[in-house]
Formats: sequence, C-alpha cells, structure tokens
Amino acid sequence: MDRTVRFGVSLDATLLESFDRYIEGKGYTNRSEAIRDLIREKLVERQWEAGDNQVAGTVSLVYDHHNLDLPSRLVDVQHDHHDLVISSVHVHLDHHNCLEVLILRGRARDVKAFGERLCSTRGIKHGRLTFTTTGYGLV
Amino acid sequence: MDRTVRFGVSLDATLLESFDRYIEGKGYTNRSEAIRDLIREKLVERQWEAGDNQVAGTVSLVYDHHNLDLPSRLVDVQHDHHDLVISSVHVHLDHHNCLEVLILRGRARDVKAFGERLCSTRGIKHGRLTFTTTGYGLV
Amino acid sequence: MDRTVRFGVSLDATLLESFDRYIEGKGYTNRSEAIRDLIREKLVERQWEAGDNQVAGTVSLVYDHHNLDLPSRLVDVQHDHHDLVISSVHVHLDHHNCLEVLILRGRARDVKAFGERLCSTRGIKHGRLTFTTTGYGLV
Amino acid sequence: MDRTVRFGVSLDATLLESFDRYIEGKGYTNRSEAIRDLIREKLVERQWEAGDNQVAGTVSLVYDHHNLDLPSRLVDVQHDHHDLVISSVHVHLDHHNCLEVLILRGRARDVKAFGERLCSTRGIKHGRLTFTTTGYGLV
Repeated sequence: MDRTVRFGVSLDATLLESFDRYIEGKGYTNRSEAIRDLIREKLVERQWEAGDNQVAGTVSLVYDHHNLDLPSRLVDVQHDHHDLVISSVHVHLDHHNCLEVLILRGRARDVKAFGERLCSTRGIKHGRLTFTTTGYGLV
Repeated sequence: MDRTVRFGVSLDATLLESFDRYIEGKGYTNRSEAIRDLIREKLVERQWEAGDNQVAGTVSLVYDHHNLDLPSRLVDVQHDHHDLVISSVHVHLDHHNCLEVLILRGRARDVKAFGERLCSTRGIKHGRLTFTTTGYGLV
Repeated sequence: MDRTVRFGVSLDATLLESFDRYIEGKGYTNRSEAIRDLIREKLVERQWEAGDNQVAGTVSLVYDHHNLDLPSRLVDVQHDHHDLVISSVHVHLDHHNCLEVLILRGRARDVKAFGERLCSTRGIKHGRLTFTTTGYGLV
Repeated sequence: MDRTVRFGVSLDATLLESFDRYIEGKGYTNRSEAIRDLIREKLVERQWEAGDNQVAGTVSLVYDHHNLDLPSRLVDVQHDHHDLVISSVHVHLDHHNCLEVLILRGRARDVKAFGERLCSTRGIKHGRLTFTTTGYGLV
C-alpha cells in the first residue's frame, strides 16, 4: 500500500556536514528520516492553521489538587466536551502538584478553543496546548 | 502557608479594554488569574533555559503501530530512562495510527535530550516535546 | 488624551518574588511596565491571527550578494509589492554575506504571504518574518 | 570553492505530494531549495542555543516618539553597545508611532541580553528580538 519514492537533494558539502552533525546530536541514525521529520513538522503546522482539519492535540495541566473545586470543575468541562476528549492521564508530582494530560481530537478550531479554555481554567498553574496530528495522510 | 499579596498595575484605559476582551475570549473570568498565567508562562520558560532545574515535560508521539519493531524499541528506550519517565498513555487514533504520550520529569537538560531522542526515533510520524513544570515554587 | 487607569492584581508572595527576579534580569525597572509588555505581546499575537488587521512586520534576509541575480530579483519583487514595503536597510556582514531587513505594513494576511515569499526566494540562506504592530490602539 | 553534493531522500509518495503542495504554496520553485531552508532553519536555531557563537539579530521596537525621553535613551543605550549595533533604520508609522529596527551582531549571549534589554525599555510598546545568522559557514 505504501509507495516509497526517492528524490535527490543537492546542497553544499559544508552545509551537509553541519546537518549531519546536527542530526547525529539529535539521535537520528538516518538522513532521510531526519528530512521526513522536518517535512512532517511543517505539514502538521499547516493542518492546524486551516481550522477545519481533523487534528489531535494534548493539553498539559499542572495544578494543586488541594485547590478545592478544581478537580471537579475539570471533570465537568471534559464531560461537556466528551466528543473532543479521548483520554486523560493523571500523575502525582508531589504532595501538592499534579500533572494531568488530556488527549484531544477534533476539528482544529474546536480543539484549539477547548484547549485554551482548559489552560485558562482558574487554579491551573501552567497549561499548555500541544499541536500534533491524527497521523492520517502523514505517512 | 500561602500568602497572597496585592499590587497595583497602571496602564492605559484603552489597553486595558483590549486586554479584557482578549481574556474574555480565552475564557478567563478574572483579570488577576490571566496575569498570573502570563507571569507563570515566563517563569516556566526560564526554568527550562537553565538546564539544571527540575522540570516536567510531555512527549507526544504519533506512529503507525504496524511499524514492525517500533513499539518494542519505544519500550526499550523508556526502560533505559525509567528515572525520567513517570507514566505513559496510549490511544488508538485509527486502524493504523496511535498517539502515545509520555510524562517525563528530571533535570531540564536530561528531559530535553531524552525527549528529542524519542521524537527522532525512526518510524515516529510526529513527535513533540512540551515544556511544563513540576509546579514546585510556582504558586 | 491618554487615560491611565490602575487595577489591583492579587497573587502569591512567592510567585511575585520570582517574577520580580525575572523582570530584574530582563532589565525592567518597573513592575507595571513588565506587565504591560506581557499584555501587549498577547494582543499583537491576536492582531496577526485575525488576517484583516493592519500590522507591521519585518523580514530579515541573509544572502551572499555574489549570488548572481538575487539582488535584482529581490528589488523586483519589492517593487511588485511597493504598497507593502515601507523601507529597507542593507548591511554588509562580511565579504560574502549581507543582511537585508525590509519593513512591511499592510493587512496581516498580505504581509504574511509576501514575507513568506521573500523568505523562500531561491538563494536566501536564512529568512525570517517577524510579527510586530503599527502601534495603533496599543497604548 | 563551493562544492555541491547530492544525496537521495526516500519517503512515501503521499508525503512527497503533500510537501510539494506545501512548498508551492510558500512560493518555492525547487524542492532542494525548500529542504535546504528547513536544514538551515534548524542550524541557525542551534547557533543561538550555544551562547558563544557569532550571530546576527534584529530588534524591532514600536513606540510613540512623543514619549519624552525615549528616543534619547535609545540612542544612549545603543552607543553604550556600539560594538553590537551595526545599523538601525527608523520609519514613521503614523503621527504617533514609529518602528525602529536595529541590526545587531556579536556573541549569541551578548546579542540576546542586549536585545532583551532594548525590548524591555520603558515606553516601548512592542519589542521583538529576531534570531538570524551572519551566514558564515551556512552555504
């Protein structure tokens, strides 16, 4: 089903040496793989720019679980958007702090709006929406 | 233990109106909360710039689980760094694609190096390291 | 004409201490000024997200001026968009490399499209579009 | 002196089609050029991460020139760092607002510290430090 093609890239030898050092530092074992990653990174950015695309995203929320009603408010808002929330994971960072990661999927504009709303929930110390992809069409 | 203080901010009335519209659009119900978030965002950036700080981070990896040995390679590399990996969650996006989110904690430089290595693993379609915080000292 | 207002922000004392250290490191002499900057930064981001707003931007282009026809192509493309280009400055970095900075103004979507086209011009070593503002409404 | 080399990249046909559409939208006429840009973008990021490298940068400052002593303070601080400032350009955006762009060169850590100080100068409405390169070694 997959169809791998090959094309040539011409560039200056010095630039290629610098790139080889760079990708080695990043842990790549393979030049093609590194270039595929550069390409896919840009394509995923574009998927998010066009608001109608199906995307996946994660939301990381750090908060103090002693914050009285925050856990229940977070559960409520997730249920209001159960169509966008696939799953969530919760870790206890210390006696006070926990990190909850929600995995979202839906239209880019909906995921973005909901992710931002979660991050701005009162009591969240640090919230972060990360743009990733459903992988569809991104071989 | 917590000690809330209050200080005054002076700014132009027009600027404040624009800010109020902005935070309303983001879902904030409270100006102080919005400003605390702006402050904490900058402080977390700094924590990551200084490589020795304890931080938390998440890594989102999208891949095709039919990719022969990728799942086992991912498990192996996680075990090699079990001190950095707190937890992971795996969701099935479709027949082919899955999204795995790892939650990391450790020194900023170690979390960054390991996160980048995960993202550059051969076969990962899209990898993303997100910088967040252990919440410690960030009330 | 300007009307300065004042409002109170409540936050944890520890968080405020961290913020004070942060802004001191950045060279701020004044807490209000630092917070105004955080606010304006977000408002400028929003101006760019809505494509119809009037914005200002800069484009930095690094290239080898020995590259045969690049300088003339850059001049041509600027004249084709003279309504967007206010000014440009050119510095000689070394015998080969020069850095040209163009200052653009117009609708966000036009400035973005033109800026990206400049950055992707064949022969440009490094191109960068920076989002800033006309300052209008941003006291 | 320049030595162009050529290497092959293998990737999935669908991914290549998406990439071709993407680079066409960006105005690239040539796949190699687009990939060289992706590579150079990452190398420039690395130059800035290592604080000792020679880099070039630009600082965009928007401010109201009626702000009493700001223009003279900006001139003073530039003269204090004349070794970092190559040139500057000033445009009048409207009756009140002006945009001044400074071109800096020096060690990454010095350019960064000075650029941030400029952006945080009291009275600046919007300041932005842009990371670019001297082009040296970046063919």
